[in-house]
Amino acid sequence: MADQLAALFANFRAGRRAALARAMSIVEDGRPEYDALLAALHPSIGRARRIGLTGPPGAGKSTLTTRLAAHYREQGLTVCIIAVDPTSPFTGGALLGDRVRMESVALDSGVFIRSMATRGSLGGLAGTTREVADVADAFGMDRILVETVGVGQSELDIARTADQSAVVLVPESGDAIQAMKAGLMEIADVFVVNKSDRPGADRVRHDLEVMLGLRGGIVLGDVPAHHGVDLKRMGNPAYAARKAAAEPREGRWTPSVIQTIGNTGEGVAELASALDRHFAYLESSGALTARRRARVRQRVVDVIESRVRRRLWMDPGTNAWLDARLPEVEAGTATPFAVADELLARSGSLLAGEKA
Amino acid sequence: MADQLAALFANFRAGRRAALARAMSIVEDGRPEYDALLAALHPSIGRARRIGLTGPPGAGKSTLTTRLAAHYREQGLTVCIIAVDPTSPFTGGALLGDRVRMESVALDSGVFIRSMATRGSLGGLAGTTREVADVADAFGMDRILVETVGVGQSELDIARTADQSAVVLVPESGDAIQAMKAGLMEIADVFVVNKSDRPGADRVRHDLEVMLGLRGGIVLGDVPAHHGVDLKRMGNPAYAARKAAAEPREGRWTPSVIQTIGNTGEGVAELASALDRHFAYLESSGALTARRRARVRQRVVDVIESRVRRRLWMDPGTNAWLDARLPEVEAGTATPFAVADELLARSGSLLAGEKA
Repeated sequence: MADQLAALFANFRAGRRAALARAMSIVEDGRPEYDALLAALHPSIGRARRIGLTGPPGAGKSTLTTRLAAHYREQGLTVCIIAVDPTSPFTGGALLGDRVRMESVALDSGVFIRSMATRGSLGGLAGTTREVADVADAFGMDRILVETVGVGQSELDIARTADQSAVVLVPESGDAIQAMKAGLMEIADVFVVNKSDRPGADRVRHDLEVMLGLRGGIVLGDVPAHHGVDLKRMGNPAYAARKAAAEPREGRWTPSVIQTIGNTGEGVAELASALDRHFAYLESSGALTARRRARVRQRVVDVIESRVRRRLWMDPGTNAWLDARLPEVEAGTATPFAVADELLARSGSLLAGEKA
Repeated sequence: MADQLAALFANFRAGRRAALARAMSIVEDGRPEYDALLAALHPSIGRARRIGLTGPPGAGKSTLTTRLAAHYREQGLTVCIIAVDPTSPFTGGALLGDRVRMESVALDSGVFIRSMATRGSLGGLAGTTREVADVADAFGMDRILVETVGVGQSELDIARTADQSAVVLVPESGDAIQAMKAGLMEIADVFVVNKSDRPGADRVRHDLEVMLGLRGGIVLGDVPAHHGVDLKRMGNPAYAARKAAAEPREGRWTPSVIQTIGNTGEGVAELASALDRHFAYLESSGALTARRRARVRQRVVDVIESRVRRRLWMDPGTNAWLDARLPEVEAGTATPFAVADELLARSGSLLAGEKA
């Protein structure tokens, strides 16, 4: 295996795409070579710019991602697209069409596309996406575009693995308010109103700008009456907007709102330049260092937690001890909390990795 | 706080619904009383039957759950409904209507409804659902119906916290195959073809029965050509069906397929009786003991992992040590793996819970 890994590294360093694909698969599937591979690539990580594109299904993210990739290619930059498809098998299909549309850029050797479709499973995918991006980074890709459907916490976690995030919305009713409710406001460094040739684009832009404190006025998109219960739980958007305006994130940056038409490419250059401005801000403010440090820290924390799990549950003695105690827990004579404490009390040196 | 908790217990034991609701909130929100509460309730857990109902959005699960609850009420049983709504804010709204429809049974004091809507976040929700069900169980509820939208791994995890699971489908095209792709086949103890007054119900039933090996023939619902890529990834349903038929889960049980019409209540008694048959099988085969033991074990494992996290990351010394090492990891002179090992090597007694 060590020989095979050495051959893989050689091909990887020589810039062979097949080696990139194989390295990504090792990481994505959590194969045994995982640690050795990532440890070896680790010193080469940190050059790429990682850009997340997230938003609701149907916002045209794939088309926009393709356009943005083409824009970067025109500037002579290499691009890796990581498309995370947490598509429900019940609603799927559409995204496969998007993947096909991407093939226009896929024929370009300066673009590498990795699709991470996963039967709807998102558990731990944030970690995996980050590490697949690390592999692309180590390979020398200049821009890494991570496209996710932003409909749940896991997708937001994935978006947070990027250096900067564009949230892509469409003119359809209520999207600005929905975005706020979905927690997208928190992660957006740039807002994109895509499909801006459709009616309602100006209103969404207006609403976003009001919410961001970029202009006065009231939010026009109204909330359907039956959302009342929900809103109480979500917090009042007007209040949240005022709060967001009063406390800009990381000091100064207020997200720009860019209008695009993915199908024609209109606005894509403006989007790229908004991302450039934001990146310059990240660099000058020290926020980039902070974000990347947080990412490295999270990586170490993830490794620790996976080590803990492996050390405890790959140990036959620990499993046998726990199994022997379960009847008491089932009978109610011991609580899960007491047994957990006892198990940890006897596992100190195991967890520390000391040889038995 | 101890006094308040004692008062809560007294009210809980006296069967007061407000105390049930408060206890559930303590568990759901992970408040400080969490451990003490669950430890105190632990001996009273294990009497309720936990039934999961899962399936795609729009399958009519809420209506069916309500009907099933009403059926159990007629038998003099108390029922707790836990409705997990991982509704995207982008597609939300419909489910709130369902909740309103549930109010018919909600006026019955033998029914308690708990909605766990959560801004689309599902992280750790399987654990929380299990423990909210524990609270209902300790309260003395006879049946606990856990309703989830089965579209992702997290929802499947939630379904697995039940003693038995009904997978609810509708006659619309391809659902049987989609269900298999979604991993629902794995968790289904009973299949329900709801809205069976619609065209296509017989076909879905037929397809399910072929897949389950209950009848010969070929699967009629065809797969759109553009799903080719996907299918390769998912595994071939025909092959999977043969495999499932050849290796019935837990020895003998082959899921029944029940047709229902939620709006009229037709088929609900049959569903209840299929669930009874399955439960009798669970008891006689020893599978119930095995499932409940697995649930108890998972609970201890979850407590251990949360203890590990708390002990490591609430410790200022550990955080300071890690922060001091991060620059090396960022510079590439140390790998996350090496630093993780070092951190664990110095944390043995901390993790064992020994006083410093």
